[in-house]
Amino acid sequence: MHFTSETTADGVTERRFTLDGVPGVLWLPADAPADAPSDAPARRPLVLLGHGGGQHKLAPGLVARAGRCATRYGFAAAAIDAPGHGERPRTAQDERFGTEIGELLATGRPISPQVARYTAALTEQAVPEWQAVIDALRRLDAVGPDGPVGFWGLSLGTVIGVPLAAADPRITAAVFGLAGHDSLAEAARRVTVPVEFLLQWDDELVPRQEALALFDAFPSGEKTLHANPGGHLELPDFEVTASELFLARHL
Amino acid sequence: MHFTSETTADGVTERRFTLDGVPGVLWLPADAPADAPSDAPARRPLVLLGHGGGQHKLAPGLVARAGRCATRYGFAAAAIDAPGHGERPRTAQDERFGTEIGELLATGRPISPQVARYTAALTEQAVPEWQAVIDALRRLDAVGPDGPVGFWGLSLGTVIGVPLAAADPRITAAVFGLAGHDSLAEAARRVTVPVEFLLQWDDELVPRQEALALFDAFPSGEKTLHANPGGHLELPDFEVTASELFLARHL
Repeated sequence: MHFTSETTADGVTERRFTLDGVPGVLWLPADAPADAPSDAPARRPLVLLGHGGGQHKLAPGLVARAGRCATRYGFAAAAIDAPGHGERPRTAQDERFGTEIGELLATGRPISPQVARYTAALTEQAVPEWQAVIDALRRLDAVGPDGPVGFWGLSLGTVIGVPLAAADPRITAAVFGLAGHDSLAEAARRVTVPVEFLLQWDDELVPRQEALALFDAFPSGEKTLHANPGGHLELPDFEVTASELFLARHL
Repeated sequence: MHFTSETTADGVTERRFTLDGVPGVLWLPADAPADAPSDAPARRPLVLLGHGGGQHKLAPGLVARAGRCATRYGFAAAAIDAPGHGERPRTAQDERFGTEIGELLATGRPISPQVARYTAALTEQAVPEWQAVIDALRRLDAVGPDGPVGFWGLSLGTVIGVPLAAADPRITAAVFGLAGHDSLAEAARRVTVPVEFLLQWDDELVPRQEALALFDAFPSGEKTLHANPGGHLELPDFEVTASELFLARHL
């Protein structure tokens, strides 16, 4: 993990990094200990923030959420660019997918099958990347080796986050939503940690029944579905606040 | 409205009443003004608490909720016994329904059709009773004539509350849930106020699709569905707290 910059503002320190070519950001409360040996390593909760499709690690909503993690709860937060997103190179496949999705959306046709096919490949790459990031961040004194890890990611964030949570027992709570497809069911059935699932009742990109089926698939003893009217991009602010409280309760 | 008793404990004054033979309870913050003429009538939010089937106006969960309305939010709260419940006489029909339901539950058969038939008659009686209670309570100085009115009621509380909210524009926000049947759809389509709807994912009494269909039917611009694992009687405490905050936000 190679840190490339550090800035502090409004009580939050933002440290950008790269890890094996993956660009990322770590946010910490400004008063967190520096990354230097210490006799009492922190056991700071870490929240992984997965961005949506077409977005990136510094999307405004994500950065605001990271800031609240640090200042309200004293948590560390981290984001990385998903393959083909943000600062990462876009392959011919990424470009083709973007064009296809644009055409489907423009003509009001369902995008789920294309999204599922494209994101399967992307997820296979993204899950080990996130795991390497968890490894590296927990080596920092400001995070510590054995704190709880939460995941917050909707839409593409959920498509990557569900297999990640299924694969990595360090993740102890997750906020998912705005997604649902048969291709996620197998991984979902292995997610046993508390889950808060956000569903938009009039989501034009995700069929309601597929989202409900994904919620249904989690065997978690504690899972909670919050559904509200509106489209894919119209999640109410109060649900974002509630989901952060959910993570705070569980980390 | 005839008050029959008044007790104050833990910051809450509980006043029992009867109105046209219907027994009820009003809860107020202990420091609320007495029911005497005043130059500045209160405009205190009023929360109507509908009890579940087989329950009554002094069910422990309901009384606890009334106490929190008064002490946390400074609201008035009121409950009445539904027809055939609590202190009210039970008709031969009430007795027959109780026996039938018991038999259906014991043999694991669906109860929705019986419940719908029975509660249709009960609701026809209960809605004007609640409306008369609102009229009478708003004549009290401690409540005032034009404050907002919220409704909180699950299961039978929803079966009565949905037609009540459809009929009475004084109700400005409602918590419903643990119910769903075609017979409620017509009234639900006339409920336009903010609704929080609680659904138990493994409800053994209410089919999931019927509960989802009832949520779907509300045209409210602001409505929010919260679903959690567990049966009809296993609503998590945190959802009760969240639903009270929802009402507090809207009243």
